[in-house]
Amino acid sequence: MKLGDLPTPALVVDRPAFDHNVAAMAAVHPGERLRPHVKAFKSTALARELAEAGHRTFCCATTREVEGMAAAGLGHDLLLANEVLDPVRLGRLGDLARSGAARVTVAVDSPETVAAAAAAGVPQVLVDVNVGLPRCGCDPADAGRVADLARSSGMAVRGVMGYEGHLMREPAAAKAAAVEASMKVLLEAREATGGDIVSAGGTGTYDCNRWATEIQAGSYVLMDTEYLPHARAFRHALFLWTTVISVNPAGWAVVDAGLKALGMDHGDPTIVDVGQCWFVSDEHITFGTDAGSPLAVGDRVRVLPAHVDPTVAMHERMVVVDGEDVVDTWPVDLRGW
Amino acid sequence: MKLGDLPTPALVVDRPAFDHNVAAMAAVHPGERLRPHVKAFKSTALARELAEAGHRTFCCATTREVEGMAAAGLGHDLLLANEVLDPVRLGRLGDLARSGAARVTVAVDSPETVAAAAAAGVPQVLVDVNVGLPRCGCDPADAGRVADLARSSGMAVRGVMGYEGHLMREPAAAKAAAVEASMKVLLEAREATGGDIVSAGGTGTYDCNRWATEIQAGSYVLMDTEYLPHARAFRHALFLWTTVISVNPAGWAVVDAGLKALGMDHGDPTIVDVGQCWFVSDEHITFGTDAGSPLAVGDRVRVLPAHVDPTVAMHERMVVVDGEDVVDTWPVDLRGW
Repeated sequence: MKLGDLPTPALVVDRPAFDHNVAAMAAVHPGERLRPHVKAFKSTALARELAEAGHRTFCCATTREVEGMAAAGLGHDLLLANEVLDPVRLGRLGDLARSGAARVTVAVDSPETVAAAAAAGVPQVLVDVNVGLPRCGCDPADAGRVADLARSSGMAVRGVMGYEGHLMREPAAAKAAAVEASMKVLLEAREATGGDIVSAGGTGTYDCNRWATEIQAGSYVLMDTEYLPHARAFRHALFLWTTVISVNPAGWAVVDAGLKALGMDHGDPTIVDVGQCWFVSDEHITFGTDAGSPLAVGDRVRVLPAHVDPTVAMHERMVVVDGEDVVDTWPVDLRGW
Repeated sequence: MKLGDLPTPALVVDRPAFDHNVAAMAAVHPGERLRPHVKAFKSTALARELAEAGHRTFCCATTREVEGMAAAGLGHDLLLANEVLDPVRLGRLGDLARSGAARVTVAVDSPETVAAAAAAGVPQVLVDVNVGLPRCGCDPADAGRVADLARSSGMAVRGVMGYEGHLMREPAAAKAAAVEASMKVLLEAREATGGDIVSAGGTGTYDCNRWATEIQAGSYVLMDTEYLPHARAFRHALFLWTTVISVNPAGWAVVDAGLKALGMDHGDPTIVDVGQCWFVSDEHITFGTDAGSPLAVGDRVRVLPAHVDPTVAMHERMVVVDGEDVVDTWPVDLRGW
């Protein structure tokens, strides 16, 4: 099948750009130096590509991601890098660990999350430490107490995690020093918790975080317009393939993809080559047409999402192309909760 | 089951508010004066509630919505209020119409969309006319030509549609006159096309559009924070039910729902009673906690989406509650394309 034959809207992976991204990251963080974040692509087929490139440890943001990865035989070492209290879902992770189908580690940052993990039979934890982003993570001064509580509840403490998400978009000149200061906090917390792992970082700091023992990055694989200026080694490997369904001679056109096909939290998508986005409706993008690019109803248009993670989560599959040839389909099989 | 027992994040319909909204609209536009827009809720179970309230004609935005409604026995009169070129999908609609499983009408606005509908065996069309919103819809002066082309291609022309979406948020004082001017364009186009139907309007103009023969409204059923100021007869009938997974004494807390559970194109969600949204991440909302509302890890929090339509499309189901009692579950079974 050819790209031109695909029904639209379709979420499409550019195989050469994907291969470039995977290779560029693996050159800096080979094997288990990288713990790819499954939340960015929610696909076991894509995860298998990363495993074949040497990365066998993964981060997950939901219990469904953990369970799906284990069911796909990718359970070598799965970190739920998120706090979860639900006893049913955590119980399933405990069962997974006991069955030997996966090595399961869960993030904890409070007495309540420690108690929930212990009650569910989760065998191992990382202590999630706040390193500057106002989100989850305990106060660094509390990390040792959280670790002691986890051990006294029967769980092993593998170390710490901390996400310096507030620094991903720092100017390059200031980024390394800011990351160093943030990681200093995390390393001190690790002194208090014990364990070998210092899990941190992301696509925006992968090249300057020299303190983490493993980098949690996911966006680099597919990339989006918002992130690219902050991680220029990577390429856009994902686009939305659309069809022009209406053209107005007053200077705009409409394609058949909208709010239900595109994460909008990072702003409007980019219309490749033929115009500028005006606004996005449920099933439409209206864009101003470039004077030099006459468009006809039925033409196909590439659209780049501003934020890959929520975009992928809206689709049932990604179609993989090499040039004009469709070479694979990757189900987005880890959606929902 | 009780609301407090639901796993989170869960998308929840408040049954009394839903009933209020359905009754308030049916009082103004009973029966087929309203053509509810399925795109706003993507659920045949919810659509069946509207059919039981007397509305048996529906709008759809995708062919999958049309097919799903027909398969659910709700095919009395389905309008695909959108331009589609895909011969495979349109062909399925033609098959549906021929089989008698549904009455199917499709919007057309160009020679290309007329040709696609005719080739697919679509029996009936509405001519989509631009009435001021820069999106689909032919120039009003072309409506007669599009209708003639449809007829000469073997299809019946039921009339016109035109969406005055640019007026939904007009100040109340100016709205009626602006809608009248916009509908004047549509009525003139109908003179040229023939047919009985003038399909227009939405939740923001349902109470002042006196010219359409049927109103296309969907948001009123569930409502969101962005739309409510423009349609005050309705109530918030949908919320996201979340769990506090982390509390920071410095003044913020985090719940377990984020960009994959909330449409963000209309801005941040509203945290009910206990704080103000700071930012939304893939699986988290970080919000500033009100000084007078001490929160604990494990507490449940209601979150109101800013835009219902893309929010619903992210979920597999809606859980229906009456007070604290879970009374029903409505699968969101019309997602995707």
